[in-house]
Amino acid sequence: MATNQSQHISQQFEKELQDIRSRVLAMGGVVEKQVSGAMEALVTGDADLARQVISGDEDVNKLDVSIDEECIQILALRQPTASDLRLVTGILKTITDLERIGDEAVRIARMALNLAEKDRPKKNYRELHALGQHVSGMLHNTLDAFARFDVDAALQVAHEDRQVDAEYESIMRQLMTYMMEDPRTISRVIDMMWSARSLERIGDHSRNVSEHIIYLVEGKDVRHLTVEKMEKVVKGGE
Amino acid sequence: MATNQSQHISQQFEKELQDIRSRVLAMGGVVEKQVSGAMEALVTGDADLARQVISGDEDVNKLDVSIDEECIQILALRQPTASDLRLVTGILKTITDLERIGDEAVRIARMALNLAEKDRPKKNYRELHALGQHVSGMLHNTLDAFARFDVDAALQVAHEDRQVDAEYESIMRQLMTYMMEDPRTISRVIDMMWSARSLERIGDHSRNVSEHIIYLVEGKDVRHLTVEKMEKVVKGGE
Repeated sequence: MATNQSQHISQQFEKELQDIRSRVLAMGGVVEKQVSGAMEALVTGDADLARQVISGDEDVNKLDVSIDEECIQILALRQPTASDLRLVTGILKTITDLERIGDEAVRIARMALNLAEKDRPKKNYRELHALGQHVSGMLHNTLDAFARFDVDAALQVAHEDRQVDAEYESIMRQLMTYMMEDPRTISRVIDMMWSARSLERIGDHSRNVSEHIIYLVEGKDVRHLTVEKMEKVVKGGE
Repeated sequence: MATNQSQHISQQFEKELQDIRSRVLAMGGVVEKQVSGAMEALVTGDADLARQVISGDEDVNKLDVSIDEECIQILALRQPTASDLRLVTGILKTITDLERIGDEAVRIARMALNLAEKDRPKKNYRELHALGQHVSGMLHNTLDAFARFDVDAALQVAHEDRQVDAEYESIMRQLMTYMMEDPRTISRVIDMMWSARSLERIGDHSRNVSEHIIYLVEGKDVRHLTVEKMEKVVKGGE
């Protein structure tokens, strides 16, 4: 193959990889909006917004299918190896987690619809709101880490996930107490519990994405490890 | 390349693909055992069995990591295209869902540990047991469909998932009634709710795997579709 031609192909391939990275970030942006919309609908009791989030899931699904297709195309036509291969397979996994974050946003929006019809508690879902803020921040940091392929930022997300888990456990205990003290709140509190669980799951998926980032940058599979072991594996390679 | 040599390589590649399929089925077998162990622990109050399931998750995770690695190796070294490429990427997705079924089994086992310390209800978790049987059957059928690359059996799983969802909804309503009628049951019923939710999620992941089977056999992405649309897409191609 003439050098010019091969250079041209490699530039085009580079452009394709850039393009797919931007599309993942665009998908991440849509998913972030879905999560914040669902939380706003829940806290303010805005049923219309909740319905928007539910119907908006179609956009997330479409992005999932089309980015997936693009990755398979690249694997078939470009037959990437080494770091390019890791990038493509890492993206395949990343969009699966982003799509599932979208599903959890829909679950929260469904709870928001339920809760919009019920009496609102005095504290107006303050604890859930705080957990939602925390998880949204974590998702945002994950997407930032992806944009910059920043391994340290990805590790930071894993740390945050542990805080989110602790916050979630404490909310669960509190909600359990509410129900026991006033059984009339049961139905509302159960909806709040499902919402808290969805937020906790969004934290887990964000952590998964941060593991994919470490994999695609460093070539190290750090899934199923504690944060301490993750750090050791990553820092040990420096 | 001499014909003999290229034939040799293609036979070896064929063997690798066969090997990876068997390993996915082996992983499926481990995951099935985890789910049935967790359900038995829950229904019988067997805390030791619950602890076994929780520690057994490490095996599932190891299989996930090592099959994943094997898939990436095949992509890098064999650069498969067409149906071979679909097989490898379909397997990558399948093991992600199997691994998450393993996580749900651990969640059920944790609830089993909680429940083992509490008074047992008269009906001894009959409804949960029935849902567990249903979901275990669905997982088994999914793995069978994978073993035979049977698209019709995969479609059948999607149908079953709808029944599982309906059964789950009905259990949830029932559990809610228990709590409201007798608030002293709240703590136990919440654990039962989480277990039911995990079973429902295992149904979802089984359905995901059946979608991956349809993709890798037929080359059609049927995710995010209703069962009716899935069937149309699959049958329309005949």
